[in-house]
This record gives sequence, structure tokens and C-alpha cells, in this order.
Amino acid sequence: AFQDVHVMIFVGFGFLMTFLKRYGFGAVGFNFLLAAFGIQWALLMQGWFHSFKDGKILIGVENLINADFCVGSVCIAFGAILGKTSPIQLLVMTLFQVTLFSVNEYILLNLLHVKDAGGSMTIHTFGAYFGLTVTRILYRPNLEQSKDKQGSVYHSDLFAMIGTLYLWMYWPSFNSAISDHGDAQHRSAINTYCSLAACVLTTMAFSSMLQKKGKLDMVHIQNATLAGGVAVGTSAEMMLTPYGSLIVGSISGIVSTLGYVYFTPFLESRLHIQDTCGIHNLHAMPGLIGGIVGAITAAAATEDVYGKEGFIKAFDFTGVYQTRTPSIQGGFQAAGIVVSLLMAFAGGAIVGGILKLPIWGDAAAENCFEDGIYWEV
Amino acid sequence: AFQDVHVMIFVGFGFLMTFLKRYGFGAVGFNFLLAAFGIQWALLMQGWFHSFKDGKILIGVENLINADFCVGSVCIAFGAILGKTSPIQLLVMTLFQVTLFSVNEYILLNLLHVKDAGGSMTIHTFGAYFGLTVTRILYRPNLEQSKDKQGSVYHSDLFAMIGTLYLWMYWPSFNSAISDHGDAQHRSAINTYCSLAACVLTTMAFSSMLQKKGKLDMVHIQNATLAGGVAVGTSAEMMLTPYGSLIVGSISGIVSTLGYVYFTPFLESRLHIQDTCGIHNLHAMPGLIGGIVGAITAAAATEDVYGKEGFIKAFDFTGVYQTRTPSIQGGFQAAGIVVSLLMAFAGGAIVGGILKLPIWGDAAAENCFEDGIYWEV
Amino acid sequence: AFQDVHVMIFVGFGFLMTFLKRYGFGAVGFNFLLAAFGIQWALLMQGWFHSFKDGKILIGVENLINADFCVGSVCIAFGAILGKTSPIQLLVMTLFQVTLFSVNEYILLNLLHVKDAGGSMTIHTFGAYFGLTVTRILYRPNLEQSKDKQGSVYHSDLFAMIGTLYLWMYWPSFNSAISDHGDAQHRSAINTYCSLAACVLTTMAFSSMLQKKGKLDMVHIQNATLAGGVAVGTSAEMMLTPYGSLIVGSISGIVSTLGYVYFTPFLESRLHIQDTCGIHNLHAMPGLIGGIVGAITAAAATEDVYGKEGFIKAFDFTGVYQTRTPSIQGGFQAAGIVVSLLMAFAGGAIVGGILKLPIWGDAAAENCFEDGIYWEV
Repeated sequence: AFQDVHVMIFVGFGFLMTFLKRYGFGAVGFNFLLAAFGIQWALLMQGWFHSFKDGKILIGVENLINADFCVGSVCIAFGAILGKTSPIQLLVMTLFQVTLFSVNEYILLNLLHVKDAGGSMTIHTFGAYFGLTVTRILYRPNLEQSKDKQGSVYHSDLFAMIGTLYLWMYWPSFNSAISDHGDAQHRSAINTYCSLAACVLTTMAFSSMLQKKGKLDMVHIQNATLAGGVAVGTSAEMMLTPYGSLIVGSISGIVSTLGYVYFTPFLESRLHIQDTCGIHNLHAMPGLIGGIVGAITAAAATEDVYGKEGFIKAFDFTGVYQTRTPSIQGGFQAAGIVVSLLMAFAGGAIVGGILKLPIWGDAAAENCFEDGIYWEV
Repeated sequence: AFQDVHVMIFVGFGFLMTFLKRYGFGAVGFNFLLAAFGIQWALLMQGWFHSFKDGKILIGVENLINADFCVGSVCIAFGAILGKTSPIQLLVMTLFQVTLFSVNEYILLNLLHVKDAGGSMTIHTFGAYFGLTVTRILYRPNLEQSKDKQGSVYHSDLFAMIGTLYLWMYWPSFNSAISDHGDAQHRSAINTYCSLAACVLTTMAFSSMLQKKGKLDMVHIQNATLAGGVAVGTSAEMMLTPYGSLIVGSISGIVSTLGYVYFTPFLESRLHIQDTCGIHNLHAMPGLIGGIVGAITAAAATEDVYGKEGFIKAFDFTGVYQTRTPSIQGGFQAAGIVVSLLMAFAGGAIVGGILKLPIWGDAAAENCFEDGIYWEV
Repeated sequence: AFQDVHVMIFVGFGFLMTFLKRYGFGAVGFNFLLAAFGIQWALLMQGWFHSFKDGKILIGVENLINADFCVGSVCIAFGAILGKTSPIQLLVMTLFQVTLFSVNEYILLNLLHVKDAGGSMTIHTFGAYFGLTVTRILYRPNLEQSKDKQGSVYHSDLFAMIGTLYLWMYWPSFNSAISDHGDAQHRSAINTYCSLAACVLTTMAFSSMLQKKGKLDMVHIQNATLAGGVAVGTSAEMMLTPYGSLIVGSISGIVSTLGYVYFTPFLESRLHIQDTCGIHNLHAMPGLIGGIVGAITAAAATEDVYGKEGFIKAFDFTGVYQTRTPSIQGGFQAAGIVVSLLMAFAGGAIVGGILKLPIWGDAAAENCFEDGIYWEV
């Protein structure tokens, strides 16, 4: 499972963003840079929060997975500002975002005692709204000067499909990587698999329906097909059932495709949010769906369905939490969404402000989405 | 093993078919669509046949692997009609083929009690002859109008090599995924590995020998190198021995390469079978070889070689089958080949007839092998 | 772990070398050929040396991993002569190099009782200096006639990044694949992960610092980022500690990047060593670093750190070796480096001499780095 998550971060996210015709080096290279930096910093941060003993950080394979998860949220935010920032800005953003991620995760998992194995809230909702806030602060009014470079070419879209497929195939491992071994892990993989499969069908159908002449749009296939994995991130390890997963996956594919067609242009023209990869459609909205579905599934849990022991184990209703009822747990899950959103908006605003300082060497508007600025081409 | 098979279906088959210069989106995108649809339908079909209890389908990871296998046979058939059908036609074909696959598999594994862990008969022979029959029925006399688009360009061949290598590397997992844990699984992986390695050498040698000027042909390297995996699909878990595997792999590489050079043009000009990817060479003939080698290996089994317990376990000679002898088993294995062929021809003819109805919106002959018809390019 | 190593050999090394604009087929195709041939020969060679019983070779999954390792050293040597040799020459080189590799490995592991789980000495140092010696013997004075084809184009660099990322991601599996299960294997994976992560940062920093205008060079990112995995190959399973790994990884990234900028041109102009992929920077120097770090780490081992049992187990101080002390072990480790170098120089000189015979059909200098000579394009 660790290697699968590792592939998702470096090949999945890296190649997913190579769709831009002149920014393939930056997409895969800067993703490599920030992820390699981020996992080191995340190992330290999460070590201090979770596995610090006698002045030493204990590291095991689970810590490596958690570091990858943390970096996943940075990769998501990178999608919003792709092509518009310098590598130094990315490193600075990574430094702060990893820190905030760890704080947010600590609040959710340890203080609110929320379940979020696949990270709908901690990774996707937080990462996406953080990135969207940063790109809002860094708004570039003259970005249409590089509009001609913001498209794809035939082969760049095929490279991006490598990223899409690896994310899609390994998402069951992502959502189940840190679930309890045994039942919860199997449930998680199977629910995610069903949700993703359903999501592909609704994405294709709506992509075709929403275009003139019924043609498919590669942007939707590359991105919206993955929304099904995001939308079951919280609930996959719970008793969502395969049928429930199919429904959630179908809905998230529709929402995400609609987002690419209607929301992204609206966000850019009205709210001045320039979202290069459309992370609002792939991570933000499906992440919220995932958080809400998770809260409902938790609130609807009964001992009948999970079995007495399975019920306690599924939600860790032990120690100080042994009096928690499912409906209270559902309330805490909902609170987790709100906390993640607040952390994302506040953190994104501060970090965006820092990145706006004119000391980081970012490119002029006409040089955005252009590898030639930072790479020997 | 599940993730390996998953990668083979989505990345392996998807990218293997991107060799066409103007049909990369269709290859990888429609493969994605039909596979995502097919695994859902296959989960239901196989659930009804094999794991239906108290009105519910029980799903475990083995079911997901079986669904991937079933979809594998659809991906194979897709190779024959690649570039000539609409996405709607593909979905219709998937619907019927998954159903027929499940019936055929039920007859072979449950009624005939045949061993076929790597699916030489159920997946390759059935899938390939099904697809070849469909493409025969859908024969397009004016296809030479799009002949200029039926070739590859330099980078499309490299994308296809991604597919080839993933299929090649993970084939040992494919053939051993549903073998009994322990000895049979190890045997299966090692035999497949040996067969594939030998196959690469004979493919390269014959590709060079059969061309003028001794140059290698990328089509052979992309495809015929995989025939060794197909040809040991049935027998890999049996006592084929590494030397036996090397021989089978060598032969299948030669047969497959000869097929590309001589059979494919013959099939097209004389039998009106337009086989875009040459699945007759990669799946049909090696699948038959695999079925025959399996029948012989089963018939030649003795308690000396397997050990008394291993012998019974290898062929499941328990219950009503405890009086079966190896030679009788060999006969049933041979019957399995015949049943698979009959199912493929009959099923392919019916489904081909349905797909020929003028209601599915397929492209005109001059628009075949062209992404622009179904995709925003 | 076996599948991870397999992916590194075929996709990792294969695509890493596709950076040349007109030699992608040769890079990935010939790598496929020599690796498929090499693993069969290596299975036989290593079988005779290590698992020969009663006239039969016993094969298990560990043998397949060892065969992949052995072939890895051939892939490394292939990097030095990439684009300048015929497929027949490659097969001849593979035949001899696999044999010499097995002899060298036997001397190191069995006679000197050296630890080298990740192969810093046996795979990287031996493979790289072997390849460099061969390319020195095959020196082509008129190679600048094909200088225009020795560069990359935009998409060929992206294909190469696929190779880089798979090598980078799976390197922890490579270094830990044949370590003892349990502690040593975990240590190995985590140390390698830390070293690789640190290596990316120093590579990026120095790549930017050493170029005019501070631009990044794709050649460095594709190669030098991997030096961190090579440089902990021997010591990763020992108590190198994560901090030690970060330091080793940082240094190797710097050394490797400096090598690409200063050493490679020097080697070519003064020593007449034409090193197409720069394996001196990626494998030779980091391999030496790895051997030395391994010798030091072994010499510095104490029972305090490993625990009494862990200490004996880590270095296999049992049987005739039970009187070995860490400092003596360090001396033997150092001797292992020297033996590997001598084997590489002597073997490379002999094999280079054989390959220089005018009977293997190698291309003229103006046709180097050109697929059209050996492939239908």
C-alpha cells in the first residue's frame, strides 16, 4: 500500500499536471521537488505531533504513508497555482502548508476524534480550499496574456492520462492504506473501487451531453473520473455498502463535470480565482461531499450492521470516547469539515500574503505556463 | 496481485492500443470507459453465478480480480475493432460479452471442471475469437479510405511500449493471481516469467529475420513479446517446469511474429477480417496453444511428480471428481477449448449482428482511426 | 518487492534512456532485449553458483530478484554505450557481464563475506566501471558527426522522467528486497527513502546554481536525483540512521550534479570516455560513496546500537565468521570495493576488446543515436 500511495504522489499528481503544452517539465519536476521536500518536513512535523519519545522520533512505514498523505494536500494546492509561481514560492508554500496540515490533522483526529482514513477532509477539502485561497490572493489580472499557452497538445494529454490512470487505479489503496487491517481495509478498498467505477460512467455521459455536438472533453476524463475516490474518502471504511458507493461515485462524477463546464469559468471571471487544474471540481467539491457522506454514514451506524465489537472498533469508541453515540460522532465529523475549511481559508490567506511579497522571483504574466523561464529547454 | 492485474487492464491494454497516430484518446479513453463499465457488470454477473447468498452478493478482493479478468477479455476484443466503432457500440458489446464470458466460464470451471488459472481459454481464446467474429460481421469494405491514419508515429509507439512493458512485467501476477496460495502460485509466476523471457528473444530474432534489411518492427516488439504469457495461461500453475516454459514461450513468440507478417494481411484480404491490433496473433493463436499445452500437461500429470496430496490439490480431484484420471482431465481440458471457440463464434456472430444495426452512430469509413469524431481535439 | 524491482529494470532503466530524440525505440527496445536475455542467463549462472542440488537448479522468487539485480548491472553498463552499439554487441556484452557479475558477487558475498544488500559494490560500482571501460575501448573519434542527434526533445525528456520516477519511487524496495525480513528490511527502506528525498533537494539546488541564469537542467533532474539510492545501497540495512541517510543523500546529489557539469566533458575530451547517459555520475561515483559509507558504518557498528542478537544477525557473524569484529568487517567491505573495481576494469577491457572485432555490425559514427539503422521507423 505504501508503494501505491508513493506512485500516486509522484507519478499520479506529477503527470496529471503535464497536460499544459509548454509546462510539462515544471509540472512533473516541481511536483517532484515539493513532494521530496514536503515528505521530509512532514516526517519531522508528524513525528513531533504523534511519535515523539525520549527526544527521538520513531519512524515506521506508517509514518512514510502519512508523510505522503500530507504531501498529497500540497500537490492538490499546487494544481491551483500551476504555472504561475516560482520554485522558491512552492517551497515556501510547502513549508507552511505541511505545518498547517499537521495542526489541522491533529485537531481533527486527536481532539475531535474524527474518522477520516482517506482524507476527504484533511487532505482534499483542506488542500483544495487552501490552494484556492492562495491563488485568489495571487490573482493575476493580465493572465490572458499567456492564454495561448494554457491549453494542451495531443501528446501532453496522453501524458496526463498516465497520471489519471495511476491515481484512479491506486485510489483503493490510498483510501485503505491506514485503515485497520482486516475488515475495515477490505471494505475501504471495495467501496472505493465501486465509487470510482461508477464515477467514470457519469463523467463520460455528462462530458458528452454538456458539449456541443456531443464530443468528449479530455479535461473531464482526466479529472472528473477521480472525484469518486475523493467523495468516499471518509466513508469508505464504514458500512457505506457497494450500492451506496455506486450512488456517491455517480453523483460526484456529475458534480465534478458540471464544475468544469460552469463553475471554473465563473470562479475566474467573477471571484478572480484562477484555478489552473480545476482543483475546485476534482478536490474541493468532492471533498465536501466526502465529508458530508462520512458524517451521515457515521450518524447512521448501528450495532446491528457492524456487530457489537466491530462497531466499537470501527469508530474507536474506547476510553474517554466510550459514551459517544453515532449521532454525536456524526456531529463531530461535521465539525471536522468546518474546522478544515476555516484552517484552509485562514492559512491560505496568510500564506498567499507571504507569497505575494515581491522577493520570490515569480514570472511575469506573459511568461506563465512556460517552462523556458525556469528550465533549459 | 489485484493491483497488478488492475494496472494491466487500465494502463497495459489502454496504452498498448495508443500506437495509432490519431486515436490515442480513443484507445486509452474508451478502454477506460468499457473497463469501468465492465467491472461493475461483471461483479453482478459473477456474483449471481458464484457468490450469491440470501439475496445478497458477497464481494471480496478475489471477486475484484475475477471482474478484472472478465473485462480483460473485452479489452482483447476491443483490439480487433479499435478505431471503427462508437463508444455506444463498445458499451453494448461489453454488456453482452461480459454475460457470455460468465456463462462460458461457468461451463468450463464448474461443469467441465477444467483448470484455467491464467485464462488461456476463458479470457484469451474466447475474447479473441469473439472479437474477430464481431469485426468480421462489421466488415468495412472501404476502410482503405482511412489507411493513412492506421499507422503510428514515433511518440505513439513509445506510449504503446508503456502498455507492453506493464503487461509483460505483471503477467506473472496475472497468471498466478487466482492460483492456490503456496506452491501453485509460485510455480505459476516462475513458469510465466520464463516463458515471457524466452518469447522476447524469439520475437526479436524473427522480427529481424522476416524484414527486408533485417530491421526490427515495433509492432512485433509491442505485441508478440507478450504471447509467451498467453501461451502458458492454463499450464503455468501445473508442473510445466521452467524448461517446458522456455520452449512454449519460444514457440509462441515465433508463431505470433509470423502471424503479424503473414496471417494478418491474409485474414484481411481473403477472409475480410480487419484486425486493427492483430489480436489473432497476440491472443487467439497463443490462447489455443495455451489450451492445448494445458491439456497435454494435465494429461501427463503423475503422482510421482506432484506428490500424492499435491496431485489431488492441483486438479481438485475431490468429491464427485475423485475418480478422474489425468488423461480424462486432459480430455475435458480439450473440450474446454472447443466450448470456448463455439461460444466465441456464436456469441460474436449475434453481438456483431446487433452492432451492425444502423442505430449506434458509428463513424463513416473515412473517419475511422480518428479521435476528432468523438473527442474535442 | 519482486514486482517493484522488475518495474525498475524494464520501465525504469528502459524509459530513463529514452531522452535521446531519435533513439527511443533503441533505448526501451534493446533494454527489453538484453534484460530478457540476461535474466535467463543469470538464472542459470546464479543457479550453478548458489542453488545447485542433485543436478537441478532450485528456483524461487528470490532467484528472480537476484536475476533482476544482475541484469541491473548490465542496464547500467548499457547506459555508457547507448546509441553506439548493435543489438548483437549488446547480447555478447550481456553474456559476458552476467558471468563476471556472478563471479564477482560470489567472491564478495561468499568468500569475503561482505554485506551489500542494495548492491552499491556488486551492481553499481562493478556495472558502471565495467561499462565505462567498455566504452573507452570502443572509443569513436568521429562521434561529433552525430552530435546533433545526441540531444533530447521536449517529449523525449518527459518519457525519461517516467523512468526516473519509477526508479526513484521503487528504490527503497530495491535496497531492501533481499535484506532479512523484519528490522533490517524496514531500516533499509526508510534509510533509502530519506537519502533519496534529500538528494532531490541538493540536486535541484546545485543544478540551478551551476547553470548560467539559474535555470534547471532536465539531465540533472532525471539522473542525479537517483544518486541517493545508489549511495546507501550497502549501508541502508545497517544502522545508518535517518539523519545519516539525509547527509549521504545530500552529498551524493551534489557530487552527481557536479559530475554532469564538470566531469563528463572532461572524461570525454581528455580520457576519451564517451559516456552517453553519464553513468559515471549516477552509478560509478555514488557507488563508490556507497561502498565507503558501508565500510565505515560496518566498522562503527557496536552491540550497544544493534543489540547483541541483532548485531550477530545484521552481519551474519556466525560459523567461521563468529570471531569477526566490526573493524575487520569494515576492512573486508573496503576490500570488496577494490575487488569490484578490478573485476570491472579487467572484465571491461577484455569484453571491450571482443566487441571491437569488426564482425558485430555496429553502425558508422554518423549513424549513432539513430533508430532508423535498426528499426522500421
